[in-house]
Parts: sequence; structure tokens; C-alpha cells
Amino acid sequence: MMGRYGLALDFGGTKLSAGVVDVATAVWQAGTPVWQAKGRVYSPPGADFHSDLAAMVKLGHELLGGERPLAVGVSFGGPVDYRTGVVRLSHHVPGWENAPLQAQLEAAFHAPVRVDNDANVAALGEYRFGTGQGSESLLYVTVSTGVGGGWVLNGRPWRGHEGLAGEIGHTVVDPAGPECLCGKRGCVERLASGPYMAADLAARLGSAESFTGQRVAELAAQGQPDAQAILQRGGWALGVGLGNAANLLNPERFILGGGVTKSGDLWWTAVRQAAQATALPQIHSDIRPAALADDAPLWGAIALLELAGLV
Amino acid sequence: MMGRYGLALDFGGTKLSAGVVDVATAVWQAGTPVWQAKGRVYSPPGADFHSDLAAMVKLGHELLGGERPLAVGVSFGGPVDYRTGVVRLSHHVPGWENAPLQAQLEAAFHAPVRVDNDANVAALGEYRFGTGQGSESLLYVTVSTGVGGGWVLNGRPWRGHEGLAGEIGHTVVDPAGPECLCGKRGCVERLASGPYMAADLAARLGSAESFTGQRVAELAAQGQPDAQAILQRGGWALGVGLGNAANLLNPERFILGGGVTKSGDLWWTAVRQAAQATALPQIHSDIRPAALADDAPLWGAIALLELAGLV
Repeated sequence: MMGRYGLALDFGGTKLSAGVVDVATAVWQAGTPVWQAKGRVYSPPGADFHSDLAAMVKLGHELLGGERPLAVGVSFGGPVDYRTGVVRLSHHVPGWENAPLQAQLEAAFHAPVRVDNDANVAALGEYRFGTGQGSESLLYVTVSTGVGGGWVLNGRPWRGHEGLAGEIGHTVVDPAGPECLCGKRGCVERLASGPYMAADLAARLGSAESFTGQRVAELAAQGQPDAQAILQRGGWALGVGLGNAANLLNPERFILGGGVTKSGDLWWTAVRQAAQATALPQIHSDIRPAALADDAPLWGAIALLELAGLV
Repeated sequence: MMGRYGLALDFGGTKLSAGVVDVATAVWQAGTPVWQAKGRVYSPPGADFHSDLAAMVKLGHELLGGERPLAVGVSFGGPVDYRTGVVRLSHHVPGWENAPLQAQLEAAFHAPVRVDNDANVAALGEYRFGTGQGSESLLYVTVSTGVGGGWVLNGRPWRGHEGLAGEIGHTVVDPAGPECLCGKRGCVERLASGPYMAADLAARLGSAESFTGQRVAELAAQGQPDAQAILQRGGWALGVGLGNAANLLNPERFILGGGVTKSGDLWWTAVRQAAQATALPQIHSDIRPAALADDAPLWGAIALLELAGLV
């Protein structure tokens, strides 16, 4: 009974998640995928590379229950060199710079490991097991605390020459727009991400209250006009970015995930209208919600192993 | 001695060009490619599908001197369905809608034919024989009467789900910018194409004189401030479009061709600065002039046959 298991690991900003699948059965079925075992631990404040890695290895071994996995697929929440499995940097946790994640996990699990960044892995998860099923090319975009994306072209991840493709959040859609931390004005992330929309609403209301992206959506749903304007502007910005991407690459499908996509019809309508107005009339932008939610990176990690021929 | 020849055809807006290469020798050499025979005729005003096709077939047969080609590669100046070789529409010449170009040429030359649009074919030409040599991924952009582009990703053309990828000219970089014929404001083509820059200069000077893009560049070189401002704005718009494309796809190289790219340092500096300011600091946008000039589509047509395994 040994060796039938694929292990998926997801190093998020604050959470470490892992799942085990029996690759001989569950994954290969159509419909809703089922995990053999799944778990999650929190990465505490003050965590670093060594503590996170140790916690994740412990979680993985627990879920495997003494079995050795066929292979280990990994989603990492930051830039990674896919070819070497070395982390470039972490936006969240110190000590990850140049960490040889793949090599360390191979030693810990005695199995081959593949590592990619969360956007690419989530895109692959939706492509293989979620909303992307049946399409050949897609851009997956997560709209959350940041705005980032991953491509699947011809059924394979497109990572770009330097492994940095998919940064739709840093495309500029309004050069006269507000300034972003990235130094530019009017990039998609500055206008469409949850924290920036929340900060803009607080500023507009002159409020000392600290809003969240979710609160902006709630107030908009209650008819608060400033919240509606900011939410619609965020949807517009993302829509222009998607329309530009449609003109440039003409992918079959766009898939949107992340907390901001729960903002309701006002937001979705703004996104779709701006995308349609920006794309050429002959170019069709099929924009759909993601299906796998928080599980997209875990399922994508399994798909990553499939593509590498390891499970 | 029969059957060593590849025939390349380029259906341009006003010109019909053709070239013959000995695929056993010339094309496969490194360095500057050499044509066995090359010719060009003009598509007269009033030309239609039948007259253009007849003129091109005549030119091809003349250049072949009675030899039958191994295969025929075709660049067409408008949208084409690559899989079927049927023209979708022509922006220039009437009667081309739904013309079965591939089938008609196969009958005329008794050889297999491949057809693609000029931007994709020129991109492939630069990739194989021009500035793109040694790179794995590139976006080729022609900046001329219009602004259009073609992708090569992983050494192959990326045409998009509906065959419409590469339309960088219709990406929006300034939603408060002037209105384009396409109905949008501030798309790259509206700001960066030769005719639009010329019209903007005429309007700004209140001049009855009819300018050209080339004249804008000449006046800018002579220090005329309005011409300089318009030329720099055009370069800026293209640069933002390239920077956005760099963030989205992270290609290894950008290659720029077309008349506007002869506008001098002022223009190139504006393009490069805007692209660099728009792309993330870790993303490098290598922007270079095209090498093959008007021959890019002809050489690309030969490369198209290579990729299809026909020569």
C-alpha cells in the first residue's frame, strides 16, 4: 500500500496547509476532488524560515501517517525559482531569502519535490480541477490583500523569462490615479485590492475607523454611496486590466478568486463591463469566479506533480 | 533539382511581395539570410481578392521559374484563421472576407500552404532570422499606420484562443486620453501611431497642412516643441503598453519595427523610460529595434513552414 500518495503543501502568509491524496483514485475522478487527509496550522507572529519549515514537515508527516509520498507539490506565497525550487524572497516571513525549499523538503520526505509560487499553482489548480476545466488557456487572478495572477497557456504554466509573469496587479490602468507603494500611479492593485479600497473609504469619510475590503463591500451593499463608488472603481480598474490582457493574449478564460470577489453583483458588473469595453469587440473575455477557494493552491500543487510526471 | 524551394508570399496593404529560398542552403545558414529570387508588385487602387490573388500567383510562378515549391508560407495583412487558412476580413482591400486563401494557393502551386496574419509572421521572422535570435519568448510590435503585435512563446507563435492575441495597440494606457476610432480613449494606437500623431500635430498647430508621422519626427528633430511633445507622448504610451505586457507575460525581449521606430533617440528614450517605469523593478524589458525591416513577413513565412515541418 506504500507509495500511492501525493502530498500538497501550501505556505501562505499566515497559514500552513497540507493535503494528501491517493493519486490512484481520488484525483483522477471527474467532479469534486476529495482529500484523503487535510490539515492546517498557523504560522505564528515571529515565525521564520526554520520554524515554518519544521511545522510544515511535522504536519505533512502526520497527514501521511508513516507513508512515504510519491512526490510533494508545493505552493509558496512569494517569488520562487521553479527550476531550482529556491525561494527568492518572502513578502511575509523573514529568513526565506534564497532558502533551498525544494532540497530541504526532498530531504525531509525522501521524495521528489516541485515548488512554484501561489498564483501559478492556484491557476493550475483551477485549470485542472476547478473553473478552468475544459479550457486550454486562462489567466487566474486573485483579488485580495494584493492582486496577482498566474497563466496557463496550452495547458501548461507560463512563468515568463524571469519567472515573474502574471503581475496584472502592477499593470497601469490610470496614470493620473492615486500613488501605489510600488511607486506608480493607478496600477490595478492600488485601485482594486481590499486594503487600498478600505483605506480610500476611510480617507473619503474622514473616519478614524479602520475598514477592511469586506466592510467596503458590506457598506456598498447597504447603499453607502462612497463605498459603492470605491468598489466600482476597483472593479473598473481590474476590468481594464483584464481587457488589456485579453487584447494582448486572448486567453480562453479569466478566473477570479480571493476575498474581494465576494463583493457582490455591483463589483462583478463593474469588472465585466470594463473588460468588455476595453477588449476589442471580436475578443471575448469569459470572466468567471474561481471554484476551489482556499484549496486552489493545494490542488494546484497536485496538478504540478502531474505535469512533471511525478504522480 | 526540383523541390528544394520554399516560396514566401506577403499580402500587404498596397504591395504584394514574394521571395524564393533554397531551403537546402541559404535559410539554414547563420547570419544574414539571402533570397534566391525576390519580387514585388503593387496592388492598384480598385484591386480586389481575385485581382490580388492572380497577381500574386503570377509573381510566385515567375520567381520559381517553372520549379514546383516544397511549400508556400503566407503573410496576410489582416485577421486570418491559421488552422483553416481562411481570411476573416481585410482592412484594405474588398472581397477578402472569408476568402479560402490557403486552398486557392494550394491549387495554384500544387504544394502545401500555411497562412497567418502579418504581425504573427513578422514576429516569427524576427525570432528566427532577426533580432529575436537566441531568445525563447518575445513580443514583436509594428508601430506604423497602426500598432499591432505578435507573440512567440517557447519558440512558437502564441495566437490566442480566437487567434487575436497581440493587439497591444488596443490596450488602454490613459482612460482620460483622446478618443480613438475603436471607441476607446487613450489606447496605445491612438497615441502612438504615425497618422494619429500627425493629426494631433496638425490640430495643435491649427495647420491646414497634412502631416505624416515621419514629418512629426523630422520637426521634433529640428526642435519644434509641439512635435517633440507629441512624439514623446507617443513613445510614452507605447512604453506603458510594453511595461504592462512585461508585467503580464515577462517575455525575454520586445522587438519594435515599423516607420515610427525611425523617429530617433527622443522617441526611443521615451519608450524605454516609460516601459521601465511601468514594469516591476525585478522585471527586465529588453527593447530592441527589428532587424529585417520590410522583409520580416517574408522570412517569417519561411519560418512558418519550418515550424510546420514542411521545408
